[in-house]
Amino acid sequence: MAKRARRLGVRLRPHVKTHKCVEIARLQAPDGAITVSTLAEARFFADAGFRDVTYAFPFPPGKEEEALDIASRLESLNLLVDHPDAARRLDHSARGAGTRFPVFLKVDCGYGRAGVDPESEEAVALARLVAESQGLELRGVLTHAGHAYHARSREEILAVARRERDVVVGLAERLRADGLDVPEVSLGSTPTCSVVDRLDGVTEIRPGNYAFLDVFQSAVGSGDRRDVALSVLATVAGRYPERGEVLIDAGSLALSRDPGPTHVDPACGLGVVLPVDGDGEGRVTSLSQEHGIVRGLPDLPVGEKVRVLPNHSCLTAAAHDRYHVVEGGEVQDVWRPVRGW
Amino acid sequence: MAKRARRLGVRLRPHVKTHKCVEIARLQAPDGAITVSTLAEARFFADAGFRDVTYAFPFPPGKEEEALDIASRLESLNLLVDHPDAARRLDHSARGAGTRFPVFLKVDCGYGRAGVDPESEEAVALARLVAESQGLELRGVLTHAGHAYHARSREEILAVARRERDVVVGLAERLRADGLDVPEVSLGSTPTCSVVDRLDGVTEIRPGNYAFLDVFQSAVGSGDRRDVALSVLATVAGRYPERGEVLIDAGSLALSRDPGPTHVDPACGLGVVLPVDGDGEGRVTSLSQEHGIVRGLPDLPVGEKVRVLPNHSCLTAAAHDRYHVVEGGEVQDVWRPVRGW
Repeated sequence: MAKRARRLGVRLRPHVKTHKCVEIARLQAPDGAITVSTLAEARFFADAGFRDVTYAFPFPPGKEEEALDIASRLESLNLLVDHPDAARRLDHSARGAGTRFPVFLKVDCGYGRAGVDPESEEAVALARLVAESQGLELRGVLTHAGHAYHARSREEILAVARRERDVVVGLAERLRADGLDVPEVSLGSTPTCSVVDRLDGVTEIRPGNYAFLDVFQSAVGSGDRRDVALSVLATVAGRYPERGEVLIDAGSLALSRDPGPTHVDPACGLGVVLPVDGDGEGRVTSLSQEHGIVRGLPDLPVGEKVRVLPNHSCLTAAAHDRYHVVEGGEVQDVWRPVRGW
Repeated sequence: MAKRARRLGVRLRPHVKTHKCVEIARLQAPDGAITVSTLAEARFFADAGFRDVTYAFPFPPGKEEEALDIASRLESLNLLVDHPDAARRLDHSARGAGTRFPVFLKVDCGYGRAGVDPESEEAVALARLVAESQGLELRGVLTHAGHAYHARSREEILAVARRERDVVVGLAERLRADGLDVPEVSLGSTPTCSVVDRLDGVTEIRPGNYAFLDVFQSAVGSGDRRDVALSVLATVAGRYPERGEVLIDAGSLALSRDPGPTHVDPACGLGVVLPVDGDGEGRVTSLSQEHGIVRGLPDLPVGEKVRVLPNHSCLTAAAHDRYHVVEGGEVQDVWRPVRGW
């Protein structure tokens, strides 16, 4: 992804929510510029020496004091707004503290989750409100094409990626034509950043999942399953030959419970199961809190170890308090992520 | 549930996996007899003074030494087996340590997740293997009617509950007729224990979810929504009137992602949303890692607080590292659960 960013002429500001782990973020972002999904991540990475952090969630009112505290320990804590009420509260807090928050206008490029409508008058009005607020500084416009995960192929992802780019670059140009300064144009998801061909007018990308990849990315064509770097080690605890199933000691809490890429693989199940010793491949077909039921490997003996490749590595990683870093079949290190909010 | 157990003439051995919290378990189990879902819970509750712990998962080979260590700090660490290989490994470890594990034969009463077929010769053979192993002691038979969660009404739950009882009591009688000593007959889930009428022949029940209840229990008729004791506090961070939705700062990681009781309420969504101040009710209709999209409360202002009642309280509780104990609108205490494995 770093190579792709260089070739596309943009900064890589990786989204560290996928792993929440300093050691991995250092590999991705030697310049210390990252994206986070929680203020807990912002604190954790600030303590670890990262200097330029974008909290990529429409700022939730009530957390202004916490953000001020974290910002005081960073070169830049960049915040998102998509509603004037949130912007006004941020402005009020920053002015009270005699400082300024750098702010991105969060833009909806078709995902329909959060962000202003880029065609609307409200988008321009909110950008102007930010630019003219004494406690805020308009840092730029930002979007995330999460609907790339609904794609069925690299071609469909590419169409979403081009639209993600065109929407956010187009809005930046409108705002500039309206007299506003828009230094940054930020976008990205792992699917779109993995396939997009040109990023003219964009200054940075924020993919996250590529650090691990997962069954979902390989199903939609934005990653190769041989590159999936995260798995959960589990033990076969029961065998039920009459129904062709085995039981593993990893359930919803260890694997998380993401329905997976059912739109391209209705039988994807809840995770791909690979024996540590031996061949073949199974699927997790049902999960309860600590129980995982596996089909496709009915001959695995009780006591065998398996690796489960997750449907969605961000959620699965968040279920654990440490990573065992494995190379050549040996645990080389233990890395500890941040948890909570 | 304690009252029900007394009336039904059985011991209540609550499953603490729902909350993993000492303070709650003390309210439920003043005699110190509990059920756990992980060895981490067993250690944590042993340290807190609980004396009699059933690890209700078919024992996963490879964890025998850990179980021996925990057992040395308890009066009784009761284990489950449903396969002779696991039983033999437990026996070997216990004999090596000069001790004995109390063991339950795990029985499938129709759930189809784990456990021996109660009609099979293998069930009797495995019970005999345990009874005759020097390092094991046959403590009893145990089942869990998890398929009660597939029921659509109290009447359907009652049918499952009677079958849960009849299957496990019937097997205990067969084993006794075969000359084996079967002191304990254990069953239970919150739905079945909430509705079952008689438990003749049963010695203990192991419901867990009743400590909190949730949207699922109220939908299938085993709990009242007004009694749901767990909620996640969140803040409205965005408003999208054109699609009638608001954004809250609680996503898959804060709420977990249980599909809920879709068989009785296809529109149940991913959690019920109640404003802290004000009326009305919404549903979480989509989740990503930190984003929750809510429908049904389009007029909530940005900055408002909401409570989300979970589809499945066990999974939601496990997403957090503390409980804020609220009474009369004030936080009275903070309780910390155990996490991990």
